Amino acid sequence: MAKKMQTFKIAGSPVYVGPSALEELRYNLTTLFVNKESVFILADENTDKHCYPLLAGMVPQMERAYKIVIPAGEDHKTLATCEQVWNQMAVAGANRKSLLINLGGGMVSDLGGFAASVFHRGMEYVNIPTTLMSMIDASLGGKTGVDLYSLKNQIGLFAPPAAVYVWSGFLSTLPHRQLLSGYAEMIKHALIADADFWKRLIRIPMAVVSSWDDQILEAIRIKAEIVNADPLEQGSRRLLNFGHTLGHAFETWSLRNDKSPLTHGEAIAMGMICEAYISYRIAGLSHSDRDELVRQILLNFNHYKIPTTAIDELVEITNYDKKNQKGRTMLTLLRNIGHAVEGQQCEPAIIRESLFRFTDFGRLTE
Amino acid sequence: MAKKMQTFKIAGSPVYVGPSALEELRYNLTTLFVNKESVFILADENTDKHCYPLLAGMVPQMERAYKIVIPAGEDHKTLATCEQVWNQMAVAGANRKSLLINLGGGMVSDLGGFAASVFHRGMEYVNIPTTLMSMIDASLGGKTGVDLYSLKNQIGLFAPPAAVYVWSGFLSTLPHRQLLSGYAEMIKHALIADADFWKRLIRIPMAVVSSWDDQILEAIRIKAEIVNADPLEQGSRRLLNFGHTLGHAFETWSLRNDKSPLTHGEAIAMGMICEAYISYRIAGLSHSDRDELVRQILLNFNHYKIPTTAIDELVEITNYDKKNQKGRTMLTLLRNIGHAVEGQQCEPAIIRESLFRFTDFGRLTE
Ligand SMILES: NC(=O)c1ccc[n+]([C@@H]2O[C@H](COP(=O)([O-])OP(=O)(O)OC[C@H]3O[C@@H](n4cnc5c(N)ncnc54)[C@H](O)[C@@H]3O)[C@@H](O)[C@H]2O)c1
Ligand SMILES: NC(=O)c1ccc[n+]([C@@H]2O[C@H](COP(=O)([O-])OP(=O)(O)OC[C@H]3O[C@@H](n4cnc5c(N)ncnc54)[C@H](O)[C@@H]3O)[C@@H](O)[C@H]2O)c1
Ligand SMILES: [Zn+2]
Ligand SMILES: [Zn+2]
Repeated sequence: MAKKMQTFKIAGSPVYVGPSALEELRYNLTTLFVNKESVFILADENTDKHCYPLLAGMVPQMERAYKIVIPAGEDHKTLATCEQVWNQMAVAGANRKSLLINLGGGMVSDLGGFAASVFHRGMEYVNIPTTLMSMIDASLGGKTGVDLYSLKNQIGLFAPPAAVYVWSGFLSTLPHRQLLSGYAEMIKHALIADADFWKRLIRIPMAVVSSWDDQILEAIRIKAEIVNADPLEQGSRRLLNFGHTLGHAFETWSLRNDKSPLTHGEAIAMGMICEAYISYRIAGLSHSDRDELVRQILLNFNHYKIPTTAIDELVEITNYDKKNQKGRTMLTLLRNIGHAVEGQQCEPAIIRESLFRFTDFGRLTE
Repeated sequence: MAKKMQTFKIAGSPVYVGPSALEELRYNLTTLFVNKESVFILADENTDKHCYPLLAGMVPQMERAYKIVIPAGEDHKTLATCEQVWNQMAVAGANRKSLLINLGGGMVSDLGGFAASVFHRGMEYVNIPTTLMSMIDASLGGKTGVDLYSLKNQIGLFAPPAAVYVWSGFLSTLPHRQLLSGYAEMIKHALIADADFWKRLIRIPMAVVSSWDDQILEAIRIKAEIVNADPLEQGSRRLLNFGHTLGHAFETWSLRNDKSPLTHGEAIAMGMICEAYISYRIAGLSHSDRDELVRQILLNFNHYKIPTTAIDELVEITNYDKKNQKGRTMLTLLRNIGHAVEGQQCEPAIIRESLFRFTDFGRLTE
């Protein structure tokens, strides 16, 4: 990466990206600690262990923040965990002039962003993403929320962070499977908006990437462009949902049925395979584009084995999708690699067909 | 009341007030039912029994709304009740294009407004207040929220309703104690902003009021002026908090300790007695104004008996107040009857003093 730090503005929030992003944070916190009545830092068990020491080393003021640690993992992205956070904040005397710093992946920023935004009718929060997923996607753009039972992100609101600080140094301790999860979202960013980025991405096998800095910048640029064109998701921001209707269904199903559930990215990767098929069937995606996409995904992600008996439940789950309108399932689909279209209505029969195909590994690229 | 309906705009929401407010609703619902994917109506056990039949009689479309009934009472204004609501909405296929109609007092509109505003990142809601309290205060202005344990309104957000329909006909079944509760807030509106309204109010003993329509209009006018001057409560909207710092402390204490806890208005009435004393001590309220205020309140409300040993806990509770800044308790106080000032810093010692006075009935107006 050429520059030490680049700055974006996403849905109104300043986003600082690069090796010196945390210096910027240290600088800003000096003012923040004076203006805010109290500062809280939210981490999960893993980011507390791996990321908090790094952060505290570089940003000494962090010692003065009140730390709240929650259990890690999507199945804790719940109202019950929010209640723990609110309770600790209330006991420590937080109020709407306090600040919450979310240190973690998308689970922490989704939950912490929601918890902050409805505490005392809204206190400010800052995101410090520690996963690839959150650096290029989850921490950006102001969507916050928690799951309701196993239904993803049902409860939440649009509330942009006061700032986001993206420092790829945190990735050094991230388990490979989690890196892969973020990689899925990066693939998605390329597929929906930038065929050149896609070509550059697939040229280097993921396993040999030594620094993610350039890819992170490109992915954030794409996210910024799409979000800023439609911050409140009234139309074109839905482009970012490619792979997510079926992906959320896989994710929900897996949370309900698997001991070690799919990561968000793994679910989205499988969702993209299905939605590539749907794109081919109803949105004009060519067979060769579809083939290239599916092969590239299967190079990095294991095919998720589900029994064909699960298909009904998966179709049922897509009925709860937040993007539906008047009971119709609306998808974002691909016309070509690098060009997506949102608001594509899709019959349940075609969704079912894509899932049947999906269960039959041998015919995936047929 | 001269006109059949008057219209206000409060924090951006249209508010229809008067005998034909429900005709307006019937008219608007015709459009709403076409544009909304599904309509939900939220009531508590009592408003379901007493108000829903009246509403359904006058607004036939209501039959097509999905009804959700929650238990009545402040101790159900919780996240647990929200979860019941969200769960029923999810099962019935609600999404962000659905509409929630809150039929009830402040408990229903506070909780329903919050539940709607964070469901699928925000669906619209409409308030139909059925208590005097909610007609002149709780249903107006966009503050929504629920209690966290016994701490009042800790979780919530600012999210104005799509519309409010105020029809005083619902008051015919409201228990006297609940009418009185709303009367406390009406007194407050007069005290902070309109000495003439105060004089008119105290001229007629509450028990002999036959129609509340005129007083409701005056009280809504005051609320509208104050909210619209500062919708996001950055300053002058805090005028509406007179009586509420000590009032919330009484309310919280009572919820924790009493079998039949104080209503919100009863608590506010007691809070106003204490804050009138504080106003007299530090904000220049004259002895005679204070005396008039206290006598008028005690004409309608029973003096709340608390042991002097409760005083520490009450002071402690005021430390959690959302209006505090940098650990200092900030109150809205009266300069005169009809003229309040916000942002008055108050030492714990003075708060304690007001509570000691309060426990000693004989010295209340001394
Ligand atoms: N709000 C949005 O716009 C948006 C976008 C995409 C995804 N999301 C949400 O984000 C969530 C997924 O985010 P995620 O993939 O970051 O998952 P995550 O936050 O659950 O993190 C994955 C795992 O990695 C651990 N971890 C995080 N950083 C680490 C580090 N530096 N070193 C070691 N371990 C670390 C975590 O403790 C966790 O166990 C999902 O809930 C998804 O719905 C939200
Ligand atoms: N959001 C705001 O700006 C704001 C302002 C003031 C008060 N509040 C909140 O409002 C709540 C108090 O509201 P409330 O006083 O309306 O209490 P409430 O909603 O609890 O209603 C009081 C009781 O009257 C019953 N009831 C309501 N309407 C009836 C009717 N027409 N006939 C028979 N019974 C009826 C209810 O079931 C309940 O038992 C508190 O939680 C308070 O914090 C909010
Ligand atoms: Zn995603
Ligand atoms: Zn009140």
